[in-house]
Amino acid sequence: MITRRDVEEADARIAGRVRRTPVIEGEPGLVLKLESLQHAGSFKVRGAFNRILGAGPTPDAGVIAASGGNHGVAVAYAARVLGVRAEIFVPEVCAPIKVAGLRALGAHVTQTGAIFADAYEASAKRAAETGALEIHAYDQPEVVAGQGTLGLELIGQARTLGGVDTILVAVGGGGLIAGVAAAVAGEARVVAVEPERIPTLHDAMAHGGPVAVEVSGVGADALGASRAGRIAYETARAAGVRALLVTDEAITEARRELWRDYRLATEHAGATALAALRSGAYTPDPGERVAVVVCGANTDPSTLT
Amino acid sequence: MITRRDVEEADARIAGRVRRTPVIEGEPGLVLKLESLQHAGSFKVRGAFNRILGAGPTPDAGVIAASGGNHGVAVAYAARVLGVRAEIFVPEVCAPIKVAGLRALGAHVTQTGAIFADAYEASAKRAAETGALEIHAYDQPEVVAGQGTLGLELIGQARTLGGVDTILVAVGGGGLIAGVAAAVAGEARVVAVEPERIPTLHDAMAHGGPVAVEVSGVGADALGASRAGRIAYETARAAGVRALLVTDEAITEARRELWRDYRLATEHAGATALAALRSGAYTPDPGERVAVVVCGANTDPSTLT
Repeated sequence: MITRRDVEEADARIAGRVRRTPVIEGEPGLVLKLESLQHAGSFKVRGAFNRILGAGPTPDAGVIAASGGNHGVAVAYAARVLGVRAEIFVPEVCAPIKVAGLRALGAHVTQTGAIFADAYEASAKRAAETGALEIHAYDQPEVVAGQGTLGLELIGQARTLGGVDTILVAVGGGGLIAGVAAAVAGEARVVAVEPERIPTLHDAMAHGGPVAVEVSGVGADALGASRAGRIAYETARAAGVRALLVTDEAITEARRELWRDYRLATEHAGATALAALRSGAYTPDPGERVAVVVCGANTDPSTLT
Repeated sequence: MITRRDVEEADARIAGRVRRTPVIEGEPGLVLKLESLQHAGSFKVRGAFNRILGAGPTPDAGVIAASGGNHGVAVAYAARVLGVRAEIFVPEVCAPIKVAGLRALGAHVTQTGAIFADAYEASAKRAAETGALEIHAYDQPEVVAGQGTLGLELIGQARTLGGVDTILVAVGGGGLIAGVAAAVAGEARVVAVEPERIPTLHDAMAHGGPVAVEVSGVGADALGASRAGRIAYETARAAGVRALLVTDEAITEARRELWRDYRLATEHAGATALAALRSGAYTPDPGERVAVVVCGANTDPSTLT
């Protein structure tokens, strides 16, 4: 489990490395946290920096991660900024444009295995050989605490706008929501939003622990963990987090709204929390102040219209 | 000429109608004002609302404007919000997608004439017949004062970030820069940035008054006025505004940076002010704090990468 203290330590550690992303008011009572404007296009750099900086001097072998998505890009970005070596393992099906993006950030990319789990296993084996610092996409305390700094920031920013009662957060492996729940404990309620085709936290809550789920639909590229992290599950359960499900259609429509009304480019995952509000999966009480985390923008912009 | 008082009155008049767009810190000493997230995708709604609301009850014939670009979209948006009729005149060459966008906002669109000046003349004639309220794209006091509210907002926001010495603003007809110069007089220096292929304010300064210029290049769709407005020229001259020129290549590169490093979608005009900083057309003194206005996002997102 992660506590607010862990998040505050992370916040001090990564200060100046991550962007203090802005908030914007939507209609009255709604605050959007624009984490899609973060370095490397998502909140994932927060955890990556905290893991690397919290581990002391980085081994000569550098850092290592498995992910062809936002986590991989974030680790590659953080490593470049800090001047350490990054190795990223991705499955063979990883799109060439993503591999090229990782290489453009200076990462050493290894494509191996049919699915993500294969790439992950290969990365763990490689780390054991080289001594590189492993950075997990969500199930590591330093990673969860790092993601939680978004919550600290949001609470402070929302104060100037009248405060916030409830924060809606999209969930993949659960690193972000667990960190945010720890950060804002006692100050705001946190609600998880998942695509109904990837109900990792929802099913973990129902089964009393993380279970494997089928992964499909529009959220699969960025919310594609097949089970909730253990840390995420325990932290979210302790915080009383509710997990709501939304349809792919609702996510797609929310993404369209963010482009049409705000000119914000987001991936489907980045619009998933807003989808809960728009579809009625979450209905605020009268006067309730809601914040929606717009968490990622790593998308092909030609798909926005 | 427009004064700070005019801008303050505009600010009170349009409060709640326009978005308080966020600022974000770039590298140390640089603040970006994200006006690209404004309603209807650009600062132009500020002037449109101020013109309509400042004119008292809107005539039954509604409002009328000539523009197939940001101004037309802003007038159509403001009219829809206020529940008044909008007529927009555009030249025959106006792209069908822009006409469709205006109609989607409920505007009555008339396509007439070969070039913008023809459409403008037709709109003025129509306004004389119907009594509709004309909203000029830049050369009307209420429009300039409305655009200036961006400057008031920016000065206030920059205070929390250590203040700002200099504000870089892209110029087409000059409505925005004149309003901003009036708003921040005595508090910050304002510098105009224009594509070298559309030097309206630059040439007006050189000739002692607005002169017609050739219009071409990547800025033409949003900065395509063929001469600076009279109000813009006088206000900018009185404020001691300098007008710098940047190449189309510098603008394109700045636009690419805003997408790559911030995931901000901008039109070329929206990246023009940043281009001055990146290309060396403007070099800040050591310790100088610079704000760059990112002023518009009405772009085809498939062109961002």
